[in-house]
Amino acid sequence: MSNSTTQIMEETVSETTSDTAPLVSSEVPSSSNYTQLNHTSDIQETVEDELQGSHGVRRRQPIQKIEPGSMNTLSAKYESLDYDTCENHLLLDEERKRGYAFIVWKDIARWVIVLLIGVITALIAFIIDICIEEFSKIKYKQLKKSVDTYVMLDKLYIPYLLWVLSNICVVFIGSMLVAYVEPVAAGSGIPQVKCYLNGVKVSRVVRIKTLFVKAVGVITAVVGGLAGGKEGPMIHSGAVVAAGISQGKSTTFNKDFKIFQYFREDHEKRDFVSGGAAAGVSAAFGAPIGGVLFSLEEGTSFWNQGLTWRTFFGTVVSTFTLNIALSAYHGHPGELSYPGLLNLGKMEPFPFQFYELPVFMFFGMVGGVLGALWNYINYRLSVFRIRYIRSPWLRVVEACLVAAVTATCGFLMMFVLDDCRPLGEDPTKVPLQLFCADGEYNTMAAIWFQTPEASVRSFLHDPMGSYKPLSLLVFVICYFLLSTWTFGLAVSSGLFIPNLLTGAAWGRMLAILIQYMLPSNTVNPAKYALVGAAAQLGGVVRMTISLTVIIIETTGQISNALPIIITLVVAKWTGDFFNEGIYDIHIQLAGVPLLPWEPPPLAHNIYASEVMSHPVFTLRTVENVGHIVELLRVVSYNGFPVVDPPLADDAEVTTYKRLRGMILRSQLIVLLQNKIYNENANTTWSNFNVDMNMFRKEYPRYPSIEELEISDWEKTCTIDLRPFMNPSPYTLPHRASLPRLFRLFRALGLRHLPIVNDLNEVVGMVTRKDIARYRVWRHRGHMGMEELLLSSEI
Amino acid sequence: MSNSTTQIMEETVSETTSDTAPLVSSEVPSSSNYTQLNHTSDIQETVEDELQGSHGVRRRQPIQKIEPGSMNTLSAKYESLDYDTCENHLLLDEERKRGYAFIVWKDIARWVIVLLIGVITALIAFIIDICIEEFSKIKYKQLKKSVDTYVMLDKLYIPYLLWVLSNICVVFIGSMLVAYVEPVAAGSGIPQVKCYLNGVKVSRVVRIKTLFVKAVGVITAVVGGLAGGKEGPMIHSGAVVAAGISQGKSTTFNKDFKIFQYFREDHEKRDFVSGGAAAGVSAAFGAPIGGVLFSLEEGTSFWNQGLTWRTFFGTVVSTFTLNIALSAYHGHPGELSYPGLLNLGKMEPFPFQFYELPVFMFFGMVGGVLGALWNYINYRLSVFRIRYIRSPWLRVVEACLVAAVTATCGFLMMFVLDDCRPLGEDPTKVPLQLFCADGEYNTMAAIWFQTPEASVRSFLHDPMGSYKPLSLLVFVICYFLLSTWTFGLAVSSGLFIPNLLTGAAWGRMLAILIQYMLPSNTVNPAKYALVGAAAQLGGVVRMTISLTVIIIETTGQISNALPIIITLVVAKWTGDFFNEGIYDIHIQLAGVPLLPWEPPPLAHNIYASEVMSHPVFTLRTVENVGHIVELLRVVSYNGFPVVDPPLADDAEVTTYKRLRGMILRSQLIVLLQNKIYNENANTTWSNFNVDMNMFRKEYPRYPSIEELEISDWEKTCTIDLRPFMNPSPYTLPHRASLPRLFRLFRALGLRHLPIVNDLNEVVGMVTRKDIARYRVWRHRGHMGMEELLLSSEI
Repeated sequence: MSNSTTQIMEETVSETTSDTAPLVSSEVPSSSNYTQLNHTSDIQETVEDELQGSHGVRRRQPIQKIEPGSMNTLSAKYESLDYDTCENHLLLDEERKRGYAFIVWKDIARWVIVLLIGVITALIAFIIDICIEEFSKIKYKQLKKSVDTYVMLDKLYIPYLLWVLSNICVVFIGSMLVAYVEPVAAGSGIPQVKCYLNGVKVSRVVRIKTLFVKAVGVITAVVGGLAGGKEGPMIHSGAVVAAGISQGKSTTFNKDFKIFQYFREDHEKRDFVSGGAAAGVSAAFGAPIGGVLFSLEEGTSFWNQGLTWRTFFGTVVSTFTLNIALSAYHGHPGELSYPGLLNLGKMEPFPFQFYELPVFMFFGMVGGVLGALWNYINYRLSVFRIRYIRSPWLRVVEACLVAAVTATCGFLMMFVLDDCRPLGEDPTKVPLQLFCADGEYNTMAAIWFQTPEASVRSFLHDPMGSYKPLSLLVFVICYFLLSTWTFGLAVSSGLFIPNLLTGAAWGRMLAILIQYMLPSNTVNPAKYALVGAAAQLGGVVRMTISLTVIIIETTGQISNALPIIITLVVAKWTGDFFNEGIYDIHIQLAGVPLLPWEPPPLAHNIYASEVMSHPVFTLRTVENVGHIVELLRVVSYNGFPVVDPPLADDAEVTTYKRLRGMILRSQLIVLLQNKIYNENANTTWSNFNVDMNMFRKEYPRYPSIEELEISDWEKTCTIDLRPFMNPSPYTLPHRASLPRLFRLFRALGLRHLPIVNDLNEVVGMVTRKDIARYRVWRHRGHMGMEELLLSSEI
Repeated sequence: MSNSTTQIMEETVSETTSDTAPLVSSEVPSSSNYTQLNHTSDIQETVEDELQGSHGVRRRQPIQKIEPGSMNTLSAKYESLDYDTCENHLLLDEERKRGYAFIVWKDIARWVIVLLIGVITALIAFIIDICIEEFSKIKYKQLKKSVDTYVMLDKLYIPYLLWVLSNICVVFIGSMLVAYVEPVAAGSGIPQVKCYLNGVKVSRVVRIKTLFVKAVGVITAVVGGLAGGKEGPMIHSGAVVAAGISQGKSTTFNKDFKIFQYFREDHEKRDFVSGGAAAGVSAAFGAPIGGVLFSLEEGTSFWNQGLTWRTFFGTVVSTFTLNIALSAYHGHPGELSYPGLLNLGKMEPFPFQFYELPVFMFFGMVGGVLGALWNYINYRLSVFRIRYIRSPWLRVVEACLVAAVTATCGFLMMFVLDDCRPLGEDPTKVPLQLFCADGEYNTMAAIWFQTPEASVRSFLHDPMGSYKPLSLLVFVICYFLLSTWTFGLAVSSGLFIPNLLTGAAWGRMLAILIQYMLPSNTVNPAKYALVGAAAQLGGVVRMTISLTVIIIETTGQISNALPIIITLVVAKWTGDFFNEGIYDIHIQLAGVPLLPWEPPPLAHNIYASEVMSHPVFTLRTVENVGHIVELLRVVSYNGFPVVDPPLADDAEVTTYKRLRGMILRSQLIVLLQNKIYNENANTTWSNFNVDMNMFRKEYPRYPSIEELEISDWEKTCTIDLRPFMNPSPYTLPHRASLPRLFRLFRALGLRHLPIVNDLNEVVGMVTRKDIARYRVWRHRGHMGMEELLLSSEI
């Protein structure tokens, strides 16, 4: 080792050891550790050597076999998105050439894209809406006819079988699509969108194929009578539409329109997807403000006025388009204040008194407890599914079974609970007499023979005394269990509507109870049904401000805000005492490395040197093609630090790994693919006419290194990485704490972070997953921190 | 120069020159520059030498004399807030000692503080409300009596003089307070709060004295008949309340309650102030959701679910408390849906048709143009004020003059425009007959003899035909000019209500015009008055989503959202074509180094080495007290890099300035104040029993270095800075681009950023002001970037 290096080493040593007090510097990796590292890189010759050396050193990240369904494991298979701009020479070149006109043009293009996103999302929502409505109408009309016919003949098993069969057939179609064509289209899609916005790439989640399966899937799920809603899938649809339009190309159709190429990067795409999700919420609930808040609350960490304003424009366009389409469909064209969009029906403002606040709080507590229970049951079921219902056909069978059970529940309730009401002003479309007297109808049949959304409206708006408390109780129990069984099946359906329905039912039940206890007052059942619905949904999803606004907007009444807010606050607090929100549970089950809002507390004594993986695989500024190919084949990392080349005449500097930049696997792949290399190390890159579009053309699905054919002769060439690398990546010293790493990753949306020592030499790399492994848990008032495992098994 | 250093230098040189292509590395400061720098620090002996050397090198930041009222100058006098946590040994120590229980406790304390903020803000708003209402009632009753008496005697000059005199007297009180006691309480307070939330410390803006002057000032301004509103001041009040409560101490009363000490840091305080501002909006408009969005849109760059949820809780508490207090005051205790809070009055939902959309867009355009004109006039006036109306007494005289002119305008309009209507169902409280026939009243008198807020309600809710178009036209012109003259006077008043009033007036005027053109339709004047009000206000303030939600909430009608949104979008686009929002104009006039949302475009070719100031004043890890004192006395910087000590036996390493940490001026001051130093360089800090509270006790107003008495003997002692410094500050290399610097500052709320070279030596420092100097301008479709001057003159 040279004199100068040794001196610096000794300096570090002497200083570290002279600190008699337990200073921060004593936490720094000891100098012997350095020496070992330097030594390792001294003797290494090939990448394979590097790999062999690394296995032992990579600490606390065992890639081990994990029992599926574990909550404390992160999956290694998720890649992260990279929101950091690579400010390489090509970008500067492009900026210089295009000037401010390009900036203005990009700005206009963004508004146009958002407009398109709003319109198309609304039209898709409209189609889903109309299909569900029309198919359901046909289905329930036929069933009613059958019931009316066979109830006379005492052969009610025939309409029952018909019901079961129709449910199974319809659900079978959707379930087959989901299980065999596109499994990522299962469920509501909100957890997947949430992950995407957080910065985790969930494969195929924003493809057009997924959109198609999702749209058909949700129609079959709702028409098939499952306890599911269409709202989550609509949100997911919005996200897919946004990703598709903003990129100007489609992988599914293998078509590149060559427009909007400059938006082909993670950062821009994420912004549009967040706008698309907002437009989806807006279309699903008629809630433009709620949509903006949803995409902020669920995903975006960085609030940007311009982006928010554009998103808002998109949500307004979406509501507006849907409004026009629906009002035209229902025969009121041009009447823009058509309330058909408020899918919970327009509420009247309800006056409330001071003494009612505790009642709302009580409702919130009930919602919180029931929501936590719902989540727990669904969690156990999901673990069971992950472990035992793995093959697609088993998943299809399960979905069909649930469809049959749902029909059976409904039939039994109609049959057993003989809850009859006189036909009157009630808004039921398919009044079924069944065993009721003439001029009466079976209320349970009215609830079951319509879509869940229409049932929510019934519970919210029907007058007091429309339902027997016992019917409501049985309904709540049945629907509670059915909905928690349904969520997570291999069908596309959400949980908003089923939970609103359950909540509205128990809210109405409690309203009857309150009326019974306070016979002198006139209790407004709509008020308590709405508060109950909010409480139940809040207890399950634990969303905060966005859920409040969505419920306010979808009922068209701002003056009911205070009771809803109080209920939701209490429901969230109560639910959080027991477990996490259902989306977070599913995200954890999938092992997604989601970054929470805040760094874990009391983690200032965890240092970057412990979090990072090391040694690092580095590239030289001018690198041999063979080495690059070898490296990409052998390791799976996606980012590589570019370091100073060793000088031939200065042997002791070879151990220096002074950071010069960062280059991504995708960039290297594109460079190799386009053969941007020289025979001779002295020729420069400017021989090639390259620009950013070379990289954009392949975004986001680059070929793998195995797909490239590189001859042995080519392997002797060199690539000058300097014009392509990011010349000034963010770095942190090895003594930086975990919260500091966390904030950098969270605020800037990073994917990789090189860790340097005091001499600016790269000593390790931290990725998003390394940060996500440290998670805080809170349970029944206690809290702590856990370190998750990282596994490639799940 | 030693061998090793020269080698590294040469390496840099050779590599830079061997890059034949215009690579990024060629933009790096040339090695000769380094040598010069190193040389400078080589020969420096004292801080004064360093200073002399620095004047020439500090590039492109001339501290020169500037004409006041310039829009392209930043003031050097503003300090920034620091949202980065200093993770020093003391913090780690505290965390270790207190554990998770402390985290839970802090969390509970935060909720309690937010609860208190909500309640107290609402009570202050309630007091302001009631005072304005009661005093105005007395004033206008007396004036009416006087008019009624003297109109018979044809001596109308007597009530006129009475009016002028009463206005002047009341305004005089408020104006004296503002001009002499607390000038920062002038205006609406929203620009100041916006700056604070953005990270700029505006002196005395969150003190209790300011709150007092603001509250009294706004009462006098509104009662004094000025064209001002109370909403802005209420928002400011909320911010002050939040700062006061969360810190558990008051500078004005010189009282330290020794509670919530752990919240005494910029980051925590900012979070509370943002919550307080939101509670203020909520109290001012009865808009809890709008409040949250306001504080997000105007200030917080980082959306955090926990913080937002807590803020939302605060705004709900605030609305709720105000609701209880107001309903009790108005004799409806306990009726929580009391609509008195909706200070624009509860609107009815208005149906609208497809063909009305262009009308709303037209309204938006009119609002945008008028708003831009309003801003332009106010800008010219403000420049005039900055240049010529500088002394406090002149400012008081101007305020009194405006008060007199306002009364004169009102009087002339009543007198000249003989607009009479029959007494009927109209909600006017003080019907004035004047020259009208019996059974009639003068409509202009009805508008002028009430608070502006009540006038907005009149314009929004009075039936069609209540006002002559000519009266409205004259009123619009008068009030437009009066309100733009009033904003910026030495009184506390906002611009929301005056602009809503102007907008409602021209909206109603246009409604009459539309009715005239389409006589077959029944035009709803309320609809167009509301849209006009929104357009005018939107054209002036250019707020986006928060303003939409505030208007929706304050009129209690969500179904009117779409017209309001469309109008506001168009108004903002139109207005932005001409100039910036009024708050931004005032912020720029004050030279506040506000960071915008996005880095300036096309700035990737500006490098940290150009932005930074250098050479840097550094401290050694164990530093001599005399040197520290000297440094603090001579330079005004607030952050100092701590670097490796030169080793006595290794002369060539003395030029190294390898970064070890960052220490703030405030920390050094506290260390000196508490005499945390040793006689002997080998004794360590652990002799002293210090903890974080030593620093918190002084926060946020530390003594200046001149106030400390340090003996000559003490100056020979040393301080070990390592336990106190931030051991791993964020850094960037000198070749980092401006957008990269910007994002780091914006996302993490930094105050200082050391710039390092490839060897991790500090070569410069970038502060928030250095970044804020680069500003984009957009004007009539063009855009570009300007570099502002930094001056200590304004």
